[in-house]
Amino acid sequence: MTSASEISAKAIEILSHHAKFLFPNHDFAEVYNYSLFPAGKLFRPSLCLAVGMDKSGVGLNEIGVRTSLASASAALEVHHTYTLMHDDLPCMDNDDERRGRPSSHIKFNEWKALLGGDGLLNASYRLVSHGEHPNTALAVKIFAWATGPKGLIQGQVLDLSEEMNLSFDNLLKTHELKTARLIQLSLILGLLYSSSADWKTAKSLWRLGHAIGISFQLIDDLSELSEVNPGEHELAVNPWLTMPDQCQAKLVQEINLINKVLEEEGLRNTKTVLDAYFDKMRNVILEYSEMILKHINESGKSSDLSPLMAVL
Amino acid sequence: MTSASEISAKAIEILSHHAKFLFPNHDFAEVYNYSLFPAGKLFRPSLCLAVGMDKSGVGLNEIGVRTSLASASAALEVHHTYTLMHDDLPCMDNDDERRGRPSSHIKFNEWKALLGGDGLLNASYRLVSHGEHPNTALAVKIFAWATGPKGLIQGQVLDLSEEMNLSFDNLLKTHELKTARLIQLSLILGLLYSSSADWKTAKSLWRLGHAIGISFQLIDDLSELSEVNPGEHELAVNPWLTMPDQCQAKLVQEINLINKVLEEEGLRNTKTVLDAYFDKMRNVILEYSEMILKHINESGKSSDLSPLMAVL
Repeated sequence: MTSASEISAKAIEILSHHAKFLFPNHDFAEVYNYSLFPAGKLFRPSLCLAVGMDKSGVGLNEIGVRTSLASASAALEVHHTYTLMHDDLPCMDNDDERRGRPSSHIKFNEWKALLGGDGLLNASYRLVSHGEHPNTALAVKIFAWATGPKGLIQGQVLDLSEEMNLSFDNLLKTHELKTARLIQLSLILGLLYSSSADWKTAKSLWRLGHAIGISFQLIDDLSELSEVNPGEHELAVNPWLTMPDQCQAKLVQEINLINKVLEEEGLRNTKTVLDAYFDKMRNVILEYSEMILKHINESGKSSDLSPLMAVL
Repeated sequence: MTSASEISAKAIEILSHHAKFLFPNHDFAEVYNYSLFPAGKLFRPSLCLAVGMDKSGVGLNEIGVRTSLASASAALEVHHTYTLMHDDLPCMDNDDERRGRPSSHIKFNEWKALLGGDGLLNASYRLVSHGEHPNTALAVKIFAWATGPKGLIQGQVLDLSEEMNLSFDNLLKTHELKTARLIQLSLILGLLYSSSADWKTAKSLWRLGHAIGISFQLIDDLSELSEVNPGEHELAVNPWLTMPDQCQAKLVQEINLINKVLEEEGLRNTKTVLDAYFDKMRNVILEYSEMILKHINESGKSSDLSPLMAVL
């Protein structure tokens, strides 16, 4: 069985390979490379590669770095990185740090971070359309729809306009568009560039990606409460402080669905990647559960995380 | 013979049709629609449609609004519009006006103009991959390369870093990447989505698009000097004030090449679109020739525009 860290290492190898020919022979290439490397945990590319392995029955060593599947995995990371560069800009979230280093507009300047993001966005389409697979045009269509004005972008709009805080439904809609769409896309690209793509499986994977995205974001929100002082903004918007029971019930439901689909579809490598993530998050939540419950209780709600810990 | 204004009207019809389903049923759709409409002169979509007509031998009425050719023409305008939205932002050119109206970040705010631009960028790939034409994947590959880190984006980088002003070669490189690439792409998409795409024609059209792009930008620079007071920045960077003879020689050379390729490739509709543009610009330059020559002479150079007027 391939481990999650082996898949992640492959994703880095692929991304590094493609970065070499994507950027111009000019000082500005530093803006792209600084933002992409050292790479993050490569969750999205790993999911894409894992589904590709599961649905083609191939091992990690059989995936060439320039195949459609490999290029698509790089496209996902390049696209994700552009969203982070733009999200960090002063007019958006105004974050000076990213992965423990100065964010791109601090390291360089604003116009370089803006254009660098635009460059990566275009480059992601260069990557997803790489290769000669018969599903290429379809992959691009779905990619552009999922990330575009009706997809990821609208999720960012709902987030920034703070419409997400108006109701639990709005919160889920925002998480679906801003977080789940790119994860759904990761699974679908893995399937489209495998040897056994069909609509029934696509539908299951789409639902699976939705569940992963919602869980990912709800767990992330919960882990934010592990801080001694989460900050005023966090205390105002964290859904676990205003709707803890709804958050927990939804998260438990989605985790159960994830396990069910992984089993039904025989997604062994995909399960490995997800387990590594859930294990890490379970440990964070267990380690800081006192602090997390303290914040929830202080907000006037009471909660018991045992239903969640039973499935996580 | 179809007129340039009929082709432009068709491009508007196509763009309006696609805009209806590209954007979410949400207030934010106003950001997209405000930036796209009322549409500009639609030079790029018109060139795309004209090449498609020329190379398929079809009339304007035979082009369905949802064909690959039509969708690609809309993709070009949507992509061009995103570049304008981002170019106008405070950290870039900081322009408060666009087409005589407040630019998007003035009308809305900065994050809306930034995300609106990102949304249009993704939407342009949704459009260029629309339809079932066998050349779709190839069209996307070329689109992403021409507009990406080694293409249009690098042209914006050279422009903003003012490297373009260091030499005439740098100026041409900037114009090639920032302006010509999208025009070359307009012609190539018209060809790829026509019924007679071949590599030899693609090569001619690529060279033609380069010549149109360089001419377009040099004529634009020249027409900026028709103002009584062109402004300090313009006087500092306008290449006609520092290198008038090189600018004119290059422009004459490119216009001659344009006419030669139009003739050789039998591009009758494409010629109509270009003639309408050149006629308009010739009239501007003729009307303000005294003012233009005054600025050139005041910069210490002398020039005689008769070689240009002989070919324009």
